[in-house]
Amino acid sequence: MASHHPIPASVPPTPVTVIGLGAMGRALAKALLKAGHPTTVWNRSPGKADELVALGATAATTAEEAVRAGELIIVCVVDYDASQAILDPLADVLKGRVLVNLTSDLPARARQAAHWAEERSIAYLDGAVMVPTHMVGSADALLFYSGSRESFDRFEPVLKALGEKTEFVGGDPGFAAGYDLSLLDFFYGSISGLIHGFALAKAEGIKAVDIAPYLHSITAILPAMIEGSASEIDTGSYPGTEANLAMMAASVDHIRHASQARGLDVSLLESIKSVADRAIERGHGADDWASTYEAVIKPE
Amino acid sequence: MASHHPIPASVPPTPVTVIGLGAMGRALAKALLKAGHPTTVWNRSPGKADELVALGATAATTAEEAVRAGELIIVCVVDYDASQAILDPLADVLKGRVLVNLTSDLPARARQAAHWAEERSIAYLDGAVMVPTHMVGSADALLFYSGSRESFDRFEPVLKALGEKTEFVGGDPGFAAGYDLSLLDFFYGSISGLIHGFALAKAEGIKAVDIAPYLHSITAILPAMIEGSASEIDTGSYPGTEANLAMMAASVDHIRHASQARGLDVSLLESIKSVADRAIERGHGADDWASTYEAVIKPE
Repeated sequence: MASHHPIPASVPPTPVTVIGLGAMGRALAKALLKAGHPTTVWNRSPGKADELVALGATAATTAEEAVRAGELIIVCVVDYDASQAILDPLADVLKGRVLVNLTSDLPARARQAAHWAEERSIAYLDGAVMVPTHMVGSADALLFYSGSRESFDRFEPVLKALGEKTEFVGGDPGFAAGYDLSLLDFFYGSISGLIHGFALAKAEGIKAVDIAPYLHSITAILPAMIEGSASEIDTGSYPGTEANLAMMAASVDHIRHASQARGLDVSLLESIKSVADRAIERGHGADDWASTYEAVIKPE
Repeated sequence: MASHHPIPASVPPTPVTVIGLGAMGRALAKALLKAGHPTTVWNRSPGKADELVALGATAATTAEEAVRAGELIIVCVVDYDASQAILDPLADVLKGRVLVNLTSDLPARARQAAHWAEERSIAYLDGAVMVPTHMVGSADALLFYSGSRESFDRFEPVLKALGEKTEFVGGDPGFAAGYDLSLLDFFYGSISGLIHGFALAKAEGIKAVDIAPYLHSITAILPAMIEGSASEIDTGSYPGTEANLAMMAASVDHIRHASQARGLDVSLLESIKSVADRAIERGHGADDWASTYEAVIKPE
């Protein structure tokens, strides 16, 4: 495998360890093997390493043995309770190595893990994989890292094996998880609105495939909303445009009304309306939609 | 004005009437004037026509006089109660003309208005303007029409003055309003998720302008979600992919938990989670996200 996918001349083969061989851990190990890095793998329950060994990986029999084999230690398990249970007894062995935790959890948990590592003089990076497993290692794969900038700079060429879009987003080790959750928050709101929009169309007798081509026109205006809202939120000023919050809240209520008339679930629209109404009550009626931020951060 | 913006040789000047001179009505009249069509305008309360008269419009003193002046009668008022109050006494004058109602209201109200028109032998089109007033008349302006195909075909070149993207979406006069509401449903879900995502990032100490560039990666995956979901919803089959509904519902709960820890409003995420959970209860846990459609259409 390695011979068919040689690492670029500029990236020296680097011993890497992958701890946790769920679907994501296996995808990470495969991408490292494909890039030609000597890869040692370990999983709490056995049997997950077989496919990787066939691809050239070394299966360690203990977590300690796995850590000793690598310069860069990547952990990807179910949550930080699980990662700490594995890492806690290995603090001495981890010293001098770089620990990269790609486990998904809350930003606060990433900061706790970084604090634990700092107290033990272990270089720590926290990361988030933003793509499904089949995209890991590809040119389109986006991964966020935060924590030790020095560690990131040292191992960036190796980490790029996991995805071309390898981004260091800050020294605060909670930032990678924060970026992860924030992007997903936008994602789930969007696809929930999308499915609700389809449901409303279908309830009116419109085929989903007939309306789909036009839904792209909504996607097309989101980039301007992203950029405009970002600067307004950072400055705390939401100068109203033609379509102000009061008008948009009325429009949301109109959709809610139409959905209710067709017997659809309206909880999503009720939430959107209530947040908008609270922002209007606080004086943002003539402001931009981004002023709903003020109602999201202060629910009461 | 007309001399500077001559209509294409293929579009003969057509007498058009615009009833209702709110911000949208005025934008429609301006676009028609710009395209060189003789335009007569009328508004229930006076004083709204002055700017349009300066641009070449004729201000009628009564609605009847306005209708008599046009072959194509465009109505854009606050709702269908308002449009019917104006049109009801004018049925005889409207006969032989084409009535285009661009008022925003529920699909059911559009169907009622079409029924009223049909009983009086008035050719009827219902429409929806999908862009803000400053974009009316532009190459990017999208407008939906439904109802009388014959009327649309006859006046399409004139209607194109209001927007290059002039789309006839069906003989059912409720479809234009249905398309309108469905697109907006997707829009409001998306921008609500966006602002919530910004709020979560800010709560973690991340600047909105720093995360904005990465939010575009979410926008980039929406077109595939639109196309995939549309065919699944039409066929009622939601074959699960790698990221199935059960995993995604857990991810939503994770974001909800992180948001709650920061004191943010979580009603949007609670709604999304509850809809997903209901779909899972009905056996869609291993299916695609689009299977949440089944829970949206049957709330109980």
